[in-house]
Amino acid sequence: MIATQATLARRTERMGHSAIREILKLTQQPHVISFAGGLPPAALFPIAAMHAATERVYAQRGVAALQYSVTEGVPELRAWLADRASAAAGSAIPPEHVLVTTGSQQALDLYGRVLLDPGDVVAIEDPSYLGAIQAFDGYEARYATIATDELGMVPASLATVLAGPVRPKFVYACPSYQNPTGSELPAARRAEIVALCARAAVPLFEDDPYGEIYFDGPPPAPLLSYDATGGVTYSSTASKTVAPGLRVGWMVVPDARLRAALVSAKQGSDLHSSSLAQYLMLEFVADAAAFRTHLDATRACYRERAEAMVAALRAELAGELAFAAPRGGMFLWARTRRPELDVDALFDAAIAADVAFVPGRPFYANGDRHDGMRLNFSNSDPERIRTGVARLRAAVRELERRA
Amino acid sequence: MIATQATLARRTERMGHSAIREILKLTQQPHVISFAGGLPPAALFPIAAMHAATERVYAQRGVAALQYSVTEGVPELRAWLADRASAAAGSAIPPEHVLVTTGSQQALDLYGRVLLDPGDVVAIEDPSYLGAIQAFDGYEARYATIATDELGMVPASLATVLAGPVRPKFVYACPSYQNPTGSELPAARRAEIVALCARAAVPLFEDDPYGEIYFDGPPPAPLLSYDATGGVTYSSTASKTVAPGLRVGWMVVPDARLRAALVSAKQGSDLHSSSLAQYLMLEFVADAAAFRTHLDATRACYRERAEAMVAALRAELAGELAFAAPRGGMFLWARTRRPELDVDALFDAAIAADVAFVPGRPFYANGDRHDGMRLNFSNSDPERIRTGVARLRAAVRELERRA
Repeated sequence: MIATQATLARRTERMGHSAIREILKLTQQPHVISFAGGLPPAALFPIAAMHAATERVYAQRGVAALQYSVTEGVPELRAWLADRASAAAGSAIPPEHVLVTTGSQQALDLYGRVLLDPGDVVAIEDPSYLGAIQAFDGYEARYATIATDELGMVPASLATVLAGPVRPKFVYACPSYQNPTGSELPAARRAEIVALCARAAVPLFEDDPYGEIYFDGPPPAPLLSYDATGGVTYSSTASKTVAPGLRVGWMVVPDARLRAALVSAKQGSDLHSSSLAQYLMLEFVADAAAFRTHLDATRACYRERAEAMVAALRAELAGELAFAAPRGGMFLWARTRRPELDVDALFDAAIAADVAFVPGRPFYANGDRHDGMRLNFSNSDPERIRTGVARLRAAVRELERRA
Repeated sequence: MIATQATLARRTERMGHSAIREILKLTQQPHVISFAGGLPPAALFPIAAMHAATERVYAQRGVAALQYSVTEGVPELRAWLADRASAAAGSAIPPEHVLVTTGSQQALDLYGRVLLDPGDVVAIEDPSYLGAIQAFDGYEARYATIATDELGMVPASLATVLAGPVRPKFVYACPSYQNPTGSELPAARRAEIVALCARAAVPLFEDDPYGEIYFDGPPPAPLLSYDATGGVTYSSTASKTVAPGLRVGWMVVPDARLRAALVSAKQGSDLHSSSLAQYLMLEFVADAAAFRTHLDATRACYRERAEAMVAALRAELAGELAFAAPRGGMFLWARTRRPELDVDALFDAAIAADVAFVPGRPFYANGDRHDGMRLNFSNSDPERIRTGVARLRAAVRELERRA
C-alpha cells in the first residue's frame, strides 16, 4: 500500500516553522543563558493566589467553569475587562465591545482571518512582532513597512504608506514597549497616527500586551482612546499580568459589523476559550489588592532586570552596541555600531559562548533586513544577566579576532 | 468624523452566524425544554474529582501549568492520549503523532486551514456536523455529499463521489454516534471506506467525539485502525468524557508533513492550548479508577435518557416520526413520516409549545435539504424528556389542526 499524501493549501506554503521556535529549541539546554524567549519568570507566578482563586471557582462556579460557554466570553469577565479598558482609555467601553480570545495570538489570527484576502497589504512597523507576521502570513498578506525610530512608529512614514498606490487593509501597531524594540510611543504620535488612519479610513489593530508592565509610570493612553471613528481594534492579554498558561486574551472591537464577523470566525476556530481559565482569571483579578500586589511585584522585578541589562551592556559593550533603555515590557533592542559586526554571525558566536538572543531577521515583515538583536531581560535574574552579557562580550571579541 | 468601516475578506461573507447559535438563544428561557443543544448534564460534572486533580496540579506542576508551553501539547498528556488511542486502534501510536488542540473544533479548523484552497471540494456525509461545515466554510470549501442510511455513510455513495469529475481534497466522517444522526458505522463499512480512500489516495478526517459514550458495548475500532497509508487523521475531545469547559481536544496525525503544517498553523492561531487545562486533564485521567467511574456514570446516564426519549417518542409520535434507537452519543435523529409534516413548520410550533430541537437544514453542507430533526437527550432527565415529547406531540397536533 502506498502512502496517501495530503496536498497542502497554497497558504500553508507560507507558514513554515517560525525562526524563533528553532532558536528556542537551541536555548533549552540549561547551560545556555537565554535572552531569546519572552517568558515571565517562574518565581513571579502567583501560584498561591491562583490556587485560592481556583478554590473560589470550584466552590461558587464549578458547573459554569466546566460547561460550554458563549463564544464572546464569560459575561462577568467581559464586564471586568471593559471596566479596566475604560479606565485606561478614559472613556466608557461597553462590555459588549469586549471579546475574549485564546491568548492575544488568537486575536491577531481572527483579525487577519476576517479582513485579509490573499495579496492584501498590511501596513506594519519595521521591525514588528513576529507572531503577528506569522498570523497574517497565514492569510497570504503582503506588507507595507512603516519606519520606526527610538520612539516607535514614525507618523510621516505612515502618511507615506497611506498615500501610496496600494491601500492597506489595516495598520498593525504595538505602541507600548513594542516587541521587539521596547519603544514607548509618545502621546503626540499616538494622536497623529490615529488621525492619519481616520482620515484615510484605514482600520488599525492596536496590540498591547505590555502596557501594564511599565517601570516609571504608565504609558500614554492607548490608540483606542484617540479614535472617534470605530476604526481602532484594541487587543491585550493576561499572559504578562496573570499567567501565560491560562491562554486568556481579549479584544475591544467598537465596529459592530467587524465584531460579528470576529465572533463568527472564533466560533469556527474553537467555539469559545476555556471557561475554567476565564473564571480563574476573573476570580484572580477580583481580589483587587492581590492583583495590584502581583502587578507591582512584576513591574519591580522587570525594572530591576532591565536596569541590570542596561548597566551590563553599557559597561561591557558600549562601543559595539547602540540601544535605548526600556521604560517597560520585556525586551531591549540593540543594534551593532559597526557594519562589520553582523548580527547573524554574532548569533552563531553567542551560541558557541552559551548565550542566546533573537537576531533581527524574523521581525522584518518583508524579510529584507537583518539588523538588530532582541534581548529579553524578564526571564533571567540580574546575576545571570551580567554573566550572559559577559559571554556576549566574549562572542564579540571572538568575532573581532577572526576578522 | 465619519466611521471607519473595515472591508471584510471574501471568506468572511461565508461565515455568518450559525443557525444553531440563534436557536440556542431561543431556548435559554427556563420554561423551554431544550432538545436543541449538545451539552453534558451539569449533574454529571466531576467537580470533586476535578478539584482534587487541581490540588495535585498546583502542588506538583504549578509553574509548568501557568507558563507558556509547546505548541504540540504537554508531553505527558500526549503520551497518555497516544496510549489510549493505541488501545482503541489495536496498534501502537507514537506520542509524536498526537497534537493537542483547543477543543476538537480547532482540529477541524486547522485541518481545513492547511488543506483547503478556495473552491476545493470536501466529501462529507449528508447530513453532517454543522460545526465541521462551519469550519470548512471559513476556507471557502465546496461540498460533495455522501449518502447516509441508518448505519451511517454508504460506501457505494462514497465510491461514486471518489470516481466523480472533481477530486475531493479530503473526506470528513464521523463514524461513531454521528452528529446529527447518532448512527454507528459497522466494522465492514469502516474497512471499505478506508480502502476506498486509500485506493483513491484521498485523505480522510475521522471525527470521534462520542466513541467513548457507548451504551451496550464499544463501537467498532476507529477508521484510523484500518489505515495503512497514513491518510487518516483522527480527532477526539475531552468535552464529552471530562468537561467541555477545559477546551482540550486532540488529533492523531500519522502523516509527518501534514503534522508539521498543522503545528505551524496552530502556532499562528493560538500558540498553544491552555497549559493549565492540559495538566488538569492529565491529573484527572491519571486516577484511572475515578476516570472509569466517571465514564461509566456518563454512559449509564445517557443510556437511561436515550431510552426514555425512544420510549416516549414511540408512545406519542410513532405514526408521525421515524427514527432509530441510538447506541451511544448524545443525539437522536427523527424524520417525519408524512410529507405534509414539514420540520421547519414543526420547529415554529414546537417553540410555541415550549420545546425545542434543531431542524435539519444546517446539517446539510449544500443547504439543499431540510428534513430531519436532531433531538438531544443528554441534557434533560427522563421526566423532562417525557414532558418535552408530550409538548412535541401537542405541536404536531396543532400543525395537523391548522392543515
